[in-house]
Amino acid sequence: MLNVAIVGASGYTGLELIRILHCHPEVAVTCLTSEQSAGKRISEVFPTLRGRCDLILENLEPVRVSEKADIIFTALPHKAAMEVVPTFLKLGRKVIDLSADYRLSDPEVYGQWYEPHLNPANLKKAVYGLPEIRRAKIRGAKLVANPGCYPTSIILGLAPLLKQGLIHPHSIISDSASGVTGAGRSAKVDSLYCEVNEGYKAYGVGGVHRHTPEIEQELSLLAGEPLKVTFTPHLVPMDRGILSTIYAAPLKEMTSADLVRLYAEFYAGEPFVRVLPQGSLPSTAFVRGSNFCDIAPLVDARTGRIIIVSAIDNLVKGASGQAVQNMNLVCGFPETTGLDGLALFP
Amino acid sequence: MLNVAIVGASGYTGLELIRILHCHPEVAVTCLTSEQSAGKRISEVFPTLRGRCDLILENLEPVRVSEKADIIFTALPHKAAMEVVPTFLKLGRKVIDLSADYRLSDPEVYGQWYEPHLNPANLKKAVYGLPEIRRAKIRGAKLVANPGCYPTSIILGLAPLLKQGLIHPHSIISDSASGVTGAGRSAKVDSLYCEVNEGYKAYGVGGVHRHTPEIEQELSLLAGEPLKVTFTPHLVPMDRGILSTIYAAPLKEMTSADLVRLYAEFYAGEPFVRVLPQGSLPSTAFVRGSNFCDIAPLVDARTGRIIIVSAIDNLVKGASGQAVQNMNLVCGFPETTGLDGLALFP
Amino acid sequence: MLNVAIVGASGYTGLELIRILHCHPEVAVTCLTSEQSAGKRISEVFPTLRGRCDLILENLEPVRVSEKADIIFTALPHKAAMEVVPTFLKLGRKVIDLSADYRLSDPEVYGQWYEPHLNPANLKKAVYGLPEIRRAKIRGAKLVANPGCYPTSIILGLAPLLKQGLIHPHSIISDSASGVTGAGRSAKVDSLYCEVNEGYKAYGVGGVHRHTPEIEQELSLLAGEPLKVTFTPHLVPMDRGILSTIYAAPLKEMTSADLVRLYAEFYAGEPFVRVLPQGSLPSTAFVRGSNFCDIAPLVDARTGRIIIVSAIDNLVKGASGQAVQNMNLVCGFPETTGLDGLALFP
Amino acid sequence: MLNVAIVGASGYTGLELIRILHCHPEVAVTCLTSEQSAGKRISEVFPTLRGRCDLILENLEPVRVSEKADIIFTALPHKAAMEVVPTFLKLGRKVIDLSADYRLSDPEVYGQWYEPHLNPANLKKAVYGLPEIRRAKIRGAKLVANPGCYPTSIILGLAPLLKQGLIHPHSIISDSASGVTGAGRSAKVDSLYCEVNEGYKAYGVGGVHRHTPEIEQELSLLAGEPLKVTFTPHLVPMDRGILSTIYAAPLKEMTSADLVRLYAEFYAGEPFVRVLPQGSLPSTAFVRGSNFCDIAPLVDARTGRIIIVSAIDNLVKGASGQAVQNMNLVCGFPETTGLDGLALFP
Repeated sequence: MLNVAIVGASGYTGLELIRILHCHPEVAVTCLTSEQSAGKRISEVFPTLRGRCDLILENLEPVRVSEKADIIFTALPHKAAMEVVPTFLKLGRKVIDLSADYRLSDPEVYGQWYEPHLNPANLKKAVYGLPEIRRAKIRGAKLVANPGCYPTSIILGLAPLLKQGLIHPHSIISDSASGVTGAGRSAKVDSLYCEVNEGYKAYGVGGVHRHTPEIEQELSLLAGEPLKVTFTPHLVPMDRGILSTIYAAPLKEMTSADLVRLYAEFYAGEPFVRVLPQGSLPSTAFVRGSNFCDIAPLVDARTGRIIIVSAIDNLVKGASGQAVQNMNLVCGFPETTGLDGLALFP
Repeated sequence: MLNVAIVGASGYTGLELIRILHCHPEVAVTCLTSEQSAGKRISEVFPTLRGRCDLILENLEPVRVSEKADIIFTALPHKAAMEVVPTFLKLGRKVIDLSADYRLSDPEVYGQWYEPHLNPANLKKAVYGLPEIRRAKIRGAKLVANPGCYPTSIILGLAPLLKQGLIHPHSIISDSASGVTGAGRSAKVDSLYCEVNEGYKAYGVGGVHRHTPEIEQELSLLAGEPLKVTFTPHLVPMDRGILSTIYAAPLKEMTSADLVRLYAEFYAGEPFVRVLPQGSLPSTAFVRGSNFCDIAPLVDARTGRIIIVSAIDNLVKGASGQAVQNMNLVCGFPETTGLDGLALFP
Repeated sequence: MLNVAIVGASGYTGLELIRILHCHPEVAVTCLTSEQSAGKRISEVFPTLRGRCDLILENLEPVRVSEKADIIFTALPHKAAMEVVPTFLKLGRKVIDLSADYRLSDPEVYGQWYEPHLNPANLKKAVYGLPEIRRAKIRGAKLVANPGCYPTSIILGLAPLLKQGLIHPHSIISDSASGVTGAGRSAKVDSLYCEVNEGYKAYGVGGVHRHTPEIEQELSLLAGEPLKVTFTPHLVPMDRGILSTIYAAPLKEMTSADLVRLYAEFYAGEPFVRVLPQGSLPSTAFVRGSNFCDIAPLVDARTGRIIIVSAIDNLVKGASGQAVQNMNLVCGFPETTGLDGLALFP
Repeated sequence: MLNVAIVGASGYTGLELIRILHCHPEVAVTCLTSEQSAGKRISEVFPTLRGRCDLILENLEPVRVSEKADIIFTALPHKAAMEVVPTFLKLGRKVIDLSADYRLSDPEVYGQWYEPHLNPANLKKAVYGLPEIRRAKIRGAKLVANPGCYPTSIILGLAPLLKQGLIHPHSIISDSASGVTGAGRSAKVDSLYCEVNEGYKAYGVGGVHRHTPEIEQELSLLAGEPLKVTFTPHLVPMDRGILSTIYAAPLKEMTSADLVRLYAEFYAGEPFVRVLPQGSLPSTAFVRGSNFCDIAPLVDARTGRIIIVSAIDNLVKGASGQAVQNMNLVCGFPETTGLDGLALFP
C-alpha cells in the first residue's frame, strides 16, 4: 500500500483523483492540500466525499507533504506546480504533474506561451504521460507530465495516421469542444451558470490557446517533422467531456474501412482506446466518468478529406484518470487498476 | 460466482444494473433481455458498454432465462413483471423485482391504482426491499420488491420520526422533485429534450401519483396506524436525482439539534444513509451515481414545523443500487459489495 | 416620450429592463449606470444589445442621473438603493425600486432581516407594486417598491383564498423553486455552471430566507390578520422561472372546480394572470420571457388539502416586467404596453 | 391587414412563427393546421399561447386554407410541402415554404438527396429566400424557399469572401453545431432529454447531411464556379442556436483587421447581420430569440488559414424569423417589422 498526496485538492481534477483513488486497492490517500480551503475537511468542500474521505486540507508545505506520501499528484495552476515539484523530486518522491509546467520539452517554447520556466533541469527529465504513445518511458519515470485534455483527444485521434505518414502534416485542423469543468473551479462571471447555459461559442480562436504548442510538439514527434495545426476550442453547456473533430488531407487514397482497420490495429490491446466500427460515431456522453477515448476515423468521399472524431471525459482520460493510469505504470501496478468503472449514462 | 440475468435491460435501470454489477466481484451478468432490441448487442443500445459488456439482447423467455441465471432482476413495466416472475420463482430462481408489481401488499390496493393483480400468491411472500427498515426479512427472501424512487427518499426521511411517534401522522406533506430518467426511456413528446429543458413543473398533483399508496403503506407500518400523505412530484431538468422536502407537525417540542441527534442514532452504522450535520443541506448533485441517501432534518422555529430534506440518485438508491444492495443481502454477500463508488461530481 | 434611467444596469434585471423597454413606444432609455463596468458600453457587457443599445455605462451620480431621466429604475442590491432613492425623489423623479429596500412597510422588520433602515420617511410613502392587488395606489405613486420574485408567485397564488377567508391562515406552506438568475450575476463559486448544473437542492430552509417577511406582510394584509408561513426555496438548474407549490387547509369544503371558478372570477380582466382550466398545470417553461403568472388551484381529495401551483418568469413578472407594468401605471400608459410579447418556447 | 395561415403549426417552427407574428402589426394569423393535433386548440399544444392565440388546429385542406389566408407559411416536412404548395399558388396565394422542397434549383440534385421532385414547374419559379443575398428577387416572389438553418449561418459567413474571390473555393470546411430544436418535435428516443443532455456529438459526418447540397449550391453561385464543402454538424445540449466555425484558405494575404473591414462593408446597412469588432467572438446565447446573425472573421496568423465564426438562432434567423423577413419583403412591409425584439439572455 503506497501513500498518495494530492496537492491542489479543492479543484475538479483534485476531486476526481480522490474519487478514482477511493476504489484503488494499492494506494491510500493520506494528504490533501488547498491554499483556499486549508483547515476545512475536504468533505465540506465536496460533500460527495462525506463519510468516505474526510481528510483535513493542509497548506502546501512541500517537505511535510513529502513525509506523508510516496507519490504526489500536483493538481495546481501552471507556475505553482514548478515551484514545488523540485522539492518533491529532491526528496525522492515520484510526481505526476497535472499542470502544464512539464509538458513542453523546450523551455523557450514554454516561455513564449506562459512565462520564463523556473525549472528547466527537471523539465529535461520529465516524461510526457500519454501511455498509448510513451508507455515504456513512463514506466521508469520519476516525473510524469500528465497531458492536457484537448491534446489527449487530438494526439490519440491522429497518432495512427501521423506515425505511418499517411496525411499531409500541414493540413491538420482540429475543431474541439469542451464541457465547462475545463474552465476550472474559480469564481469568474464567465463561468457562471447563466452565462454558460444554453449557449455555444468558440474561444481562443486563431492559434492562441495554450494547448496549441503541446499539440504541435507531440504531433510533430509522431510525424517526424515539425508541423503546425489550426486548433479551435469551443465551450459546450455540459459538465464534462471533450470531443475533437479533426480534419486532414490524405497522402494516398484510403476508404473509411481502411482507416478503421488501421486504427484498430494501431490500438489493438489498448485498454482505454475504443476504435468504433464503421458507421458509429462517439459522443462525450458515452465516456462520461470513464477513462475511455472513443475514436471514429472516416473519409468524406465527396471532398477526399479524412475526418477523425474522438471523445474523452476531460476530467478522466483528459486529466485525473490518465494521471492514475500513469501512476499505475510508474508504480508497476496493472495499468487498469482503479480505472475499470464504466461511464455513467445518463 | 453467481450468474445474473437482467430482464428489461434496455431501459435506464437495466443499464444502471449492468454498470454497477460490472464491478461486483461475486456475480457475472450472463443474460440480458429486451423486447424492443432483441438481437442487438447491448453495447449497440448503450455504447458506454462497448468492449466491456457486449452480450446480445434476447427475447424474454422465462424458462431459458432461468437456465442462465441464479438471480434475476426484473426491470420491466408493471404488469409485465408479474407475468414472468411466477415462472422464475417456480424454477427456484431468486428475483429482485424493480417494478411496482410486488410492492403493495394488498392486491385490492394494487387493483385500485393499477389493474387487477395477476399473482396474489407470490405477492404475499414478497418482501419490500428497503434494507434500512427490513434488513432481516430481506436476507431470507426469494422475491424482493425493490422500492420506488420517491418512496425510498420519503420513507428514509420519515422513519426515525414515525417509528418513535414524534409527529402527527396526518400532517405529512412531501414536496418531491425528480430528474428526467424517472420518466423512463420510451419515445414520448413530453420527454423530449426541448420540452423538458429549462422548465420546472409539478405533475400528478392532488394524490394521483401511483407512488402514493406505496408511500402510505410503508409510513403507516412505521407509524403503527393508517395515515395519508399529500405527495406532490415535480420534474427537474436534470438526468438523475430525487430530492424530497417533507413537512410534518411535531407532537412535542424539538430543536434541530435534537432531530440531527435522533436521526444520527437511528441510522448509526447504516452504510448508505448520511445524516448531515446541522446547518448542512443535501443536493442531488452530491449523491449522483452513488447509493447514498443524504438527509437533513430540522425545525422551522418560526412556525414550529419539522422539515426533512432527503436526496438520492433515483437510478441508484432509488432503483438499481438498492436492487444490488438487496441482492447482496439475499445472497449473503457483504451489503456494500459493488456499491462503494463515490458520486460523480460535477 | 419619457426618458428612463436604469441604475445598476449590468445585472440580469437591468438587462431585462433594457430588453423590455427597447420595444416600449412611450419611453427612451437615456442613462445606464454600473459601478463595476462604468466606462464600457452596455453592449460590451451584454452583446445581445449590440447595434440596438450601445450606451456607455456611467458611475452612479444621483443628480446627474436625475437630469437625464424622468423615471428611474433602481436595480441595485439592498442598502445601495436607499442610499440614492431619496435624492431621486427630492429632485422630483419617479422611482421604481427593484431592491428590497422599500418593500417592508415596518422599518423595524427591515432592521431584523437586513440592517437599520436609512430612509424610513420615504418608506412610508412607498407603494408595494403588485398591480393585481394595489393597482389604484400604484397609479399615483412616486416610489414603487417592486415585489420580490418568490413573493409575487406566492401572493398571487393565495390572494383569492385569503381575501375571502377560505383557508386557515396558519396552515400555509410554500415550497418554491427558482432558476439560477435569481442568484444574480456576481462571481461566486456557488453559482458556477458546474456547481449548479445537474443538481437540485433546497436552501434557506427553516424560515431564514429574506423574502419571508415580505410574503408574510402581504399575506397578512390579505387575510386581515397576522400570519406566518413556512417558505422553502429551492434551486433548479435552469436560467429563469419560479414555481411555487403552495399548501393550505380549507376552512370549508371546496372542490377543484370551485377553486378554478373562484380564481377565474378574482382575476377576471387581469391581463397577466392566467388561471388554468381544471386538469392543467403550469410550468415555468410556458411563461419564460413573458409577464404572465399562470396559476392552477386544486383540492387533494384524499387529504382535503388545497394545493395551488403558480409559475412566473422571475426576471419578468418577478422583476423587470412587473417594474415596467408599474411604470405604465405610474405614467398613465396602457398597462400592457411593451409587455405583450409571448413566452419563448422552447 | 393581411391574413396569414401556418400549415404545420404544431412543430417548433410553427410555434415560433405564431410568436413572432403575434407582435406583427400588419398581419393576423387566421388559420393553423396540424395533422396530429387537428381539433385541439393550439394553446393546448403550446400553453405559452393561452389567452393570446387560441385558434383551433385544422386538417390541412389546401383550398380551405387558401380561402382563409393571403399568405401561407408551410412548416411541413419535405415532400409534404410540395404536395400542397401547387394548390396554394394556383389559387393566387403567396407562399413562404420552410421545408427543403424548393431550395435546390435542380430537381435532379433534389432527387439524389431526397426523392423524385413532384413539382419541378414551381421549383423553377421559387426564389431562395436569403434576403442579404437575394433581396431584390424576393420582393417580387410568389414562392419563397426559406433557407435551411445550417446553410444560413454558413452562406452569410462566407458570402463576402466568395463574392470577391478571396478564398480557394475548394478549401472550405464548416464545423457547425446546433441546438436540439433542430431535430424537430417528433417523439424519438434519440431526442429524449436524457439521451441528449450532458453530451456533445457529431452526426451526419462525411458529407451525408441533406443541407450539404443547399450549402454548395449557394456558395457555388457566390463563387461563380462549382465547389464542394466539408460540412460536419454537431448536436449541442441546448434548445436553440447554430454556430458555424468555418475554415478556408486565402488566395492573398489578409489580416484580421482587413477581414473585419471587408465584412463590415459588405453587410453595411443590413439590419440583421452584425459584424463583430476584431477580438470579439459570437455565441449562440447572444442571438437567442432574435433574428440576428453575428459574424466574426479572422486570420490564424500561425497557419495562414481564415476562420469565420457565425451564430444564429436556428428557429429565428435560421427558420421562422427569416420567413417573416421574407414575408415583409414579399408584401412590401418594412423589412424589420415584427423582428426588432432583442435576444433573451440569459
